[in-house]
Amino acid sequence: MKRSEIRQAQARALGYFEKAGIVLTDEEKGRIEIADFGLNDLESQGLEILTYVNTERCCAKELVMFANQACPEHMHPPVDGDPGKEETFRCRWGEVFLYVDGPPSETINTEPPSEWCRVRKEIHLKPGDQYTLKPGVKHWFKAGPEGAVVSEFSTRSRDEADIFTDPGVERLPEIEED
Amino acid sequence: MKRSEIRQAQARALGYFEKAGIVLTDEEKGRIEIADFGLNDLESQGLEILTYVNTERCCAKELVMFANQACPEHMHPPVDGDPGKEETFRCRWGEVFLYVDGPPSETINTEPPSEWCRVRKEIHLKPGDQYTLKPGVKHWFKAGPEGAVVSEFSTRSRDEADIFTDPGVERLPEIEED
Repeated sequence: MKRSEIRQAQARALGYFEKAGIVLTDEEKGRIEIADFGLNDLESQGLEILTYVNTERCCAKELVMFANQACPEHMHPPVDGDPGKEETFRCRWGEVFLYVDGPPSETINTEPPSEWCRVRKEIHLKPGDQYTLKPGVKHWFKAGPEGAVVSEFSTRSRDEADIFTDPGVERLPEIEED
Repeated sequence: MKRSEIRQAQARALGYFEKAGIVLTDEEKGRIEIADFGLNDLESQGLEILTYVNTERCCAKELVMFANQACPEHMHPPVDGDPGKEETFRCRWGEVFLYVDGPPSETINTEPPSEWCRVRKEIHLKPGDQYTLKPGVKHWFKAGPEGAVVSEFSTRSRDEADIFTDPGVERLPEIEED
């Protein structure tokens, strides 16, 4: 991604934090992570992430999702004796549709952003709703038409270890200065 | 505590959640924990707690503190091979003064609620500010004059294992139906 695109997406993400009533420090505002997963289509597949804390033992993040934006299908494998990341998503604002491995829902309420988003057990999260994912469960999620703000409470995040279904994903993409 | 006092404190806590813009489900509203630590003086020493998730590995809670309410000094010891609870406090609304073991501050900005609140290294948290406590560090904290809403991100909570400085504290008090 270009630096200018990142700055623009950060500014948009701030608007969502404001709508959700979530206060950030100036330092935090400047380090919102813009993840396009190397797919170069941020509007369709991307996330805006503020990591509050990520120690050896636990992690908390706030995720902003633009309207209809999706996080591609992935899972968190065991790493170095750790059984893998366990995470709870709690919707704070807007709505999000979470898809997890398991018996598929009869119908789903969003269009998958790519052929690589395959699991079909749908969980609909509105503000105040949450869902806990055990390690190793494949999942993807997509915001509703207004976008969403989602808190993530988890064990340590090791983003570099995540396994994405789409072989084209690069979780930690390069930034091009412009 | 009497059941009627608990209901009243839950209703007050809901007002703080609303002011902080935090949405709860109806199920959550009915299970806000009112902790008076067995000291029978909720206004001075108490906490209103909503636990979002508490698994073997990680935990997230929202804490409401009434105006000038304090959580008594305590620490989280190692338990069964676990090194003890590590926790991050993030102020969402209002302000909170956190006191931790370490070189004492020259002056502190609140009146300790009892002689048992003894550590004096002050950290002032306003909305967006946070602080991470390693296991075993003694701490107590007190809301400012408007009260506070504080997110807690941590490893597993084992409230029954917490060690309070005040020998009169009972972390899990009995409820008297009235």
